[in-house]
Amino acid sequence: MHDISDSPIALRRVRGFHLGGARRRVDGFPVETRVRVPGDTPTTVDMNGEHMVGQLYATHYQQAHRAYALPVLLWHGGGLTGACWDETPDGRPGWLEYFLRAGCDVVVSDAFERGRASFPAWPQVLSDAPEHRSLDAVWHHFRFGANGTFPSGASAQDLRRAAYPGSEFPVEAIEQFGRQFVARWAGTQAYALDAYAALLRDVGPCVVIGHSQGAAYALRCAQSHPDLVRAVVAIEPPLARDEPSPGARAPHLFVWGDFIESTNSTWARYRAAAERYRAALAANGCVAELLDLPAQGIPGNSHMLIMDRNSLSIAQRVHAWLAQMAQ
Amino acid sequence: MHDISDSPIALRRVRGFHLGGARRRVDGFPVETRVRVPGDTPTTVDMNGEHMVGQLYATHYQQAHRAYALPVLLWHGGGLTGACWDETPDGRPGWLEYFLRAGCDVVVSDAFERGRASFPAWPQVLSDAPEHRSLDAVWHHFRFGANGTFPSGASAQDLRRAAYPGSEFPVEAIEQFGRQFVARWAGTQAYALDAYAALLRDVGPCVVIGHSQGAAYALRCAQSHPDLVRAVVAIEPPLARDEPSPGARAPHLFVWGDFIESTNSTWARYRAAAERYRAALAANGCVAELLDLPAQGIPGNSHMLIMDRNSLSIAQRVHAWLAQMAQ
Repeated sequence: MHDISDSPIALRRVRGFHLGGARRRVDGFPVETRVRVPGDTPTTVDMNGEHMVGQLYATHYQQAHRAYALPVLLWHGGGLTGACWDETPDGRPGWLEYFLRAGCDVVVSDAFERGRASFPAWPQVLSDAPEHRSLDAVWHHFRFGANGTFPSGASAQDLRRAAYPGSEFPVEAIEQFGRQFVARWAGTQAYALDAYAALLRDVGPCVVIGHSQGAAYALRCAQSHPDLVRAVVAIEPPLARDEPSPGARAPHLFVWGDFIESTNSTWARYRAAAERYRAALAANGCVAELLDLPAQGIPGNSHMLIMDRNSLSIAQRVHAWLAQMAQ
Repeated sequence: MHDISDSPIALRRVRGFHLGGARRRVDGFPVETRVRVPGDTPTTVDMNGEHMVGQLYATHYQQAHRAYALPVLLWHGGGLTGACWDETPDGRPGWLEYFLRAGCDVVVSDAFERGRASFPAWPQVLSDAPEHRSLDAVWHHFRFGANGTFPSGASAQDLRRAAYPGSEFPVEAIEQFGRQFVARWAGTQAYALDAYAALLRDVGPCVVIGHSQGAAYALRCAQSHPDLVRAVVAIEPPLARDEPSPGARAPHLFVWGDFIESTNSTWARYRAAAERYRAALAANGCVAELLDLPAQGIPGNSHMLIMDRNSLSIAQRVHAWLAQMAQ
């Protein structure tokens, strides 16, 4: 694979926009007096009224001269935003720059209630409080190290020592990774899928690379929009009892990292469900391939393999697969 | 001013990253059981632990061949994010594309607790609930139309009829504008200023274009970092009793739209405070200029003049002023 790290990025448009959702009357806010501007007189704040609920945010980077017909959509995982495709926590280029330099049109989005997409009020619209992930919780759940071993100190040495041996995640930069975390709500899948469907209709035929929760959404959208989703890369999708419909046609690639047996049963359960899903796709006549990194002789990847030290070599493998499939 | 609408954008890097804030132990979350993945077994969710609090998010667009030495920082207003510089609600290019096509390095950011910057938990970190602005509230506050005239129907005709005569805001696209709104907290200025200071140190000498709350932050940062902020464009800053320090050196441009006397007293009060501030800057020997659009024969601009129908001609005026000042 040729080195693309120094090629410039020539863009026709950088089109950022919101999409999806609907106008809704929201009531039940107390009318309050607040000081918005320090030193100013207090203002009456009445939030009751018409609000937009359910939209997502996307940036569509359009190449001046694109190398591929289909744009690449990058869908983030839970508790994160489109920023996860940006610079890695240790300051290397991320998958956004990779696919831009490869000559792809790229669409990076924030799902409903994440990042620039905005969250509607709760309890007025969303019923529960959100989840804020701690560094401690992520340490084990994203497979950087064993449960309960997140070091209280922040020295790079402590962090490296506590991580799984051979971990490719830049654990010394875990604080920088933690700056990316956003609150997430449970039970908002229907909103998110509606907004992603609106995005697909806007963008047209495309390939979707989804990470974690974004991969689960990508699989669902490949089912619901077989005319638009022409290939899916599902990186560690958390699945349960999902089943593909017989109508699915797009080629699928499932990507898994390392340390899955080392964590609690969660990731083994998700991977087993994804493997059942992949087998069902194959039985339906779909191309449904597996990139199991450790089995390919590439050990050490965490759940955040899109920002692990070898993230760009994984991007290259995904790119090569897409170039082969999505003609 | 030459037409730059068709020139391509050649970038060396698209560098998205988080910056600022600090690691903090946050406790007081109830430990709960939640279902994150539909159909999966419930998971114990314990949010108590180490969290990153106070960061901002930025995208640094770095030109392959920049036309100006100083990058342009675009700082959004309250209840919005960096997305306000993207495509306008009615689908025209925004100020981000304008300044990219003009050959500037551009940094677009989301302030603390907005958009991709993320908000920390409340009441554990932030004491109050956030404010969610309704379309109704924005209609008058952003000077699209008179108080209480926001039409309950959504037809373009109803909206145009209800708007101030001659309004340059694309009111027929108010729903698309409403998709940009994000929750905001009051009393978070210290966090926001700390994070902006970190951004200035990262980016180095620059010019800052701030809108509304972002303009107030830009004025503060020009005071606190006179070595880094080389010019300030303050678009409708909401000020109260602010005073510049004698040490400020950067040239300042204040930009105001129309209908300020038509609204409640808020904007007249803010503009009067900003005019006192500008006079004090001038008395200190600063270049402190005023672009009062109606006085210049340009009527009809709302508070959202960065996305009004004539937004790019205002961008050109700002660009011309900066090109003259920030050499």
